[in-house]
This record gives sequence, C-alpha cells and structure tokens, in this order.
Amino acid sequence: MNNDHKKIVLRMIPYGLYVLTADDGNGNIAAATVNWVTQSAFAPPLIVVGIKADSGTCRCVKAARAFALNMLGKEQKALAFTFFRPADLSDGKISGQPYHKGLTGAPILSEAPGAVECRVVTTVEQGDHHIVVGEVVEVHLHKPPAGRPDAAILEMKDLGDNVFYGG
Amino acid sequence: MNNDHKKIVLRMIPYGLYVLTADDGNGNIAAATVNWVTQSAFAPPLIVVGIKADSGTCRCVKAARAFALNMLGKEQKALAFTFFRPADLSDGKISGQPYHKGLTGAPILSEAPGAVECRVVTTVEQGDHHIVVGEVVEVHLHKPPAGRPDAAILEMKDLGDNVFYGG
Repeated sequence: MNNDHKKIVLRMIPYGLYVLTADDGNGNIAAATVNWVTQSAFAPPLIVVGIKADSGTCRCVKAARAFALNMLGKEQKALAFTFFRPADLSDGKISGQPYHKGLTGAPILSEAPGAVECRVVTTVEQGDHHIVVGEVVEVHLHKPPAGRPDAAILEMKDLGDNVFYGG
Repeated sequence: MNNDHKKIVLRMIPYGLYVLTADDGNGNIAAATVNWVTQSAFAPPLIVVGIKADSGTCRCVKAARAFALNMLGKEQKALAFTFFRPADLSDGKISGQPYHKGLTGAPILSEAPGAVECRVVTTVEQGDHHIVVGEVVEVHLHKPPAGRPDAAILEMKDLGDNVFYGG
C-alpha cells in the first residue's frame, strides 16, 4: 500500500468540527475538539465518534458512559483551536466558554449552535483511537440554521489549507 | 427530546458520498451509495461505515469480510444517484461503470478519483443500520486532487437543497 496515496484518499473524507464534552461525576470534565464523527443509525439514533485512546477525554467519556457533541458554527474557528488544548475549568466556564449541564450531565456549550447528548451503548477498543457508539437521548438547538444545517457547521477545511486530522 | 430539533442538529454533520462495493465470491456483488463514513484510527488505519441492516449490501459486505469505498468526485452527482438504485451487473460493468477487482476482490470503480479497500475487523449490530469497522489494506488513487482532497469529493449538500440522509 502506498502510504502517500492512503493519506490523500483518506483525506477526501470531509469533516465537521465538534467539541466533545463529558462529566464523569467524579470531578473530571472533558471538552475537546473532535472531527471523526458520523451518524450510524436512525432507529435508535446512533452516533459514532473516534476518540484518541490514551486521552483524558476518552477516559472521561468511558467513565461517564455519556457525552455531548457540541456542533461548532461556521464563525467559531477560534473555538475549535481553543478546544484542541487541554480544557481549563474556572469561574464556572470551560476554557472561557459558558455552559450548562445537560440531561446526561455533559457540559452543553451555550454558544454552540446546537448539541446532541448521547448515552454510550458500546465501544470498540482497537487502534490508537477508540470507537464510541452513543445513542442520542437529548438535543439542544440554540441557533436554528437559516439554510441547510450542514452549511452552518465549521468544517476542517475552514481551519486552513494545511489543517487535517485523518489520512 | 424534540424530534424536529434532533433532525436539524444531526443534519449539521457534513457528509461526503461514496460507492461502497463488495464481492462475496459467491456471485453476489454489492455497489451502493453511502454517506455515513468516518475514519476512526490512524494505526491501524480504520474506517467506520453505517450500512442499512436489511440490505443486500450489508449481507454482501459481511459475507465478503471486505469492502471498498470508492470516493465520488465533485462532478459525479449522476453516479451518486445511479448507485442509490440496485446495482446491475452486465457487459463486465456495474450499472454501466467500468471496474476492476481490487486486492480484496471488491470492485474498484475506474472512474472514481480514489478508493480504499478494507478488511472487516468488527461489526456492531445495533439499530436499523449496522456499523462496519474496516482496516484499510489497499488504496487506489486514480485522479490526484489539485487542492485539498476534501474539496474534491462530492458532498451530500451538492445533491440538492432537500437531499439528506441523516437526522
């Protein structure tokens, strides 16, 4: 297999950007930008997320057995970079962002246009990232999109010509 | 949970379009347009696909234990619709499209700009679509993209204002 070609072809997959959040109830809160996301079923509504296996975010999501995916809006490029860094909890904010606790306990970012909350139904622990499958149990729509919803989300390609996570 | 809001927020997830192909070696060949795809690990390179559980495509992929994801190019809108319909094998073509057998036996569409071939490593059989996790074992780059690879792929939003698969 040609590794350069593998990288190019896998990078054809387009990605949105999300802040994945979780609260394990034991003082650990996760909030990290992720992009490996897809829906995987309608009934029940399932979401798949690939999460770096050795990260605090992965540990927190597994302990919480729940997570939220906060969709980033087209104009929230700075937020994507904020949550590439470790989250900082102070003054009742996460890395400076206001939030409230959702149904599952996961932090819901008030300034994200929308978010879904999921209960973890299964995980697949293979590779350097683990696959977490979540059932959508709650939704938050803070800012209804004017046109197609998928035109309103921040995408990987909006971050810069050479920013990729995949390949 | 507000179902209208769930639909809107889940439809914020952007999707590319792919022709998923497989050959079970017993005379059954699958070729179907899919969009629920994400990479899920770098090492090994893993891909997740959500496939309608009661479809011939799902049966064929599971029997073959392998599949190819043929990336559709920005100009290949007609091909996406072709493979929304059941595949027809005649004159050595699939639904009129030339192909060759890949390493895994899966049909590789000659006119797709690129394709990856995967061996199935696990499936998660929950919901109306099953999650198939595949390890990338071969790659085909027919038409290297001029700019960002993810700018060269056909996306769901390119198919029309009201075409969605998700929500």
